[in-house]
Amino acid sequence: MPQTESAIQPQDVSLQQIEEQLAALKSRIDVLDKKATEPKVAAIVFSGDLDKVLASFVITTGAVAMGMEAVMFFTFWGTPVLRDKRKKAGGKDFMGKMFGSMLPKGSCEVKLSKMNMAGMGTMMMKSLMKKKNVATLEQLIEMAGELGVRIYVCEMSMDLMGFKREEIIDYPNIEYVGVATFLAHSRGSINQLFI
Amino acid sequence: MPQTESAIQPQDVSLQQIEEQLAALKSRIDVLDKKATEPKVAAIVFSGDLDKVLASFVITTGAVAMGMEAVMFFTFWGTPVLRDKRKKAGGKDFMGKMFGSMLPKGSCEVKLSKMNMAGMGTMMMKSLMKKKNVATLEQLIEMAGELGVRIYVCEMSMDLMGFKREEIIDYPNIEYVGVATFLAHSRGSINQLFI
Amino acid sequence: MPQTESAIQPQDVSLQQIEEQLAALKSRIDVLDKKATEPKVAAIVFSGDLDKVLASFVITTGAVAMGMEAVMFFTFWGTPVLRDKRKKAGGKDFMGKMFGSMLPKGSCEVKLSKMNMAGMGTMMMKSLMKKKNVATLEQLIEMAGELGVRIYVCEMSMDLMGFKREEIIDYPNIEYVGVATFLAHSRGSINQLFI
Repeated sequence: MPQTESAIQPQDVSLQQIEEQLAALKSRIDVLDKKATEPKVAAIVFSGDLDKVLASFVITTGAVAMGMEAVMFFTFWGTPVLRDKRKKAGGKDFMGKMFGSMLPKGSCEVKLSKMNMAGMGTMMMKSLMKKKNVATLEQLIEMAGELGVRIYVCEMSMDLMGFKREEIIDYPNIEYVGVATFLAHSRGSINQLFI
Repeated sequence: MPQTESAIQPQDVSLQQIEEQLAALKSRIDVLDKKATEPKVAAIVFSGDLDKVLASFVITTGAVAMGMEAVMFFTFWGTPVLRDKRKKAGGKDFMGKMFGSMLPKGSCEVKLSKMNMAGMGTMMMKSLMKKKNVATLEQLIEMAGELGVRIYVCEMSMDLMGFKREEIIDYPNIEYVGVATFLAHSRGSINQLFI
Repeated sequence: MPQTESAIQPQDVSLQQIEEQLAALKSRIDVLDKKATEPKVAAIVFSGDLDKVLASFVITTGAVAMGMEAVMFFTFWGTPVLRDKRKKAGGKDFMGKMFGSMLPKGSCEVKLSKMNMAGMGTMMMKSLMKKKNVATLEQLIEMAGELGVRIYVCEMSMDLMGFKREEIIDYPNIEYVGVATFLAHSRGSINQLFI
């Protein structure tokens, strides 16, 4: 019997050690889990230029097509891009009316960031895109909606520019949020872009 | 005794196998540990427009308020935003004086990226922000300092534009660094933005 | 014998439990492995302004010098920066010729995003950079090539602007790709920037 006991003794120790090691690894994995990001793109659409908004939708729809998630956060000059030119909103104050008339009313009125040349460059680019069968901004927005790209609109920008929710486009996944909501998303995303 | 031995034999093998498996898992976790990022935002403030600088401070102060870390790297047109209009720096050469007079002297003189309209748009936006109780850039900078947002200033930009450290604002966590310092931070951050 | 058996019995249970725990940890590590990113910078060079393109090359060459990988995706206004002014491309249609003459022909003709002042600001900045021994854009591109920074050119942009591959600079690691290729890279990168 002695050799049996001596054979079990060290195993008992080992088992305890192993359990300690397992617990140590588990807690390290717990830490890594909290730091891990999802395959998600979080794009801040700030500039609102035709070319940049196009790029942001090409990236987010592309990401979703590849099996990733994608959220877009429209803020500042990006906000007016989401206005629907067929919709009207009443009850605006003087500043709201002024911003409303000076900022582009929806995706059709958005201009290029460069070479706009009083609208001629933008027109040229649009006709070129049509000729080359590149999707228009309107088509990309529709595609994004179908693919499940989520759009968040910055509440502060809506308020600052005097925009009302009733003048924003119909979009399947649209929400009005603050910067904290965006950060919570962006925190867990593998990719963030400020566009 | 034979059945006792045969009962211990396979266990010995198992223990060794388990220890090998533990070591393999541990080394995989070590690799993941090196790749893991911290909940930190690293923002490159390049453009220096009022709207974009506002956005960058809203994001970094928001991140810190959510328990994340935040570092900002002011470079190129972002650098003059940090000048203190009440401070003066001597010993500048011709180019330094010229840049000094042409670039905005601090956060108060910074203009919108769009619709500046010879200053009118910027003024309008500022009065609107005041009316809507949105924090001014000056208030956001102060808040960032209190919350512990760290500011790094690009040494190359300071040198190129002829800025001296004595004309930069008083800020609790400000350092003058090269691109390598920024990359070291950004490498370990979950979020990076080029603004 | 009974006490030997009773000593082995719980151990058998433990061993099985340990193996289950090991398998559970392993599958959690597998999940984390798929989410892990490489120390790689993925920069979208969209704007094509001298200052921003300079910044993007300073960041990517800096990253590679620090042992990271770096890929650049030239799209939209970034694309003409890669044209070689000594090369000519034939067979262009009217729009291609027009874009070709209106957009900068290579890194030498690229302008500042601000304070260009009909070319004077850009000239001033270039002479200043020379005086301060800051690398020119041409030198940075060459250095990037030597360090192994990979350049991807957006095929859609090439097509839209009517650029031909034979007018693009000689660069060791250059490829013509779509947005999916970029996203595949950016997905596994720790840092992404939209510049």
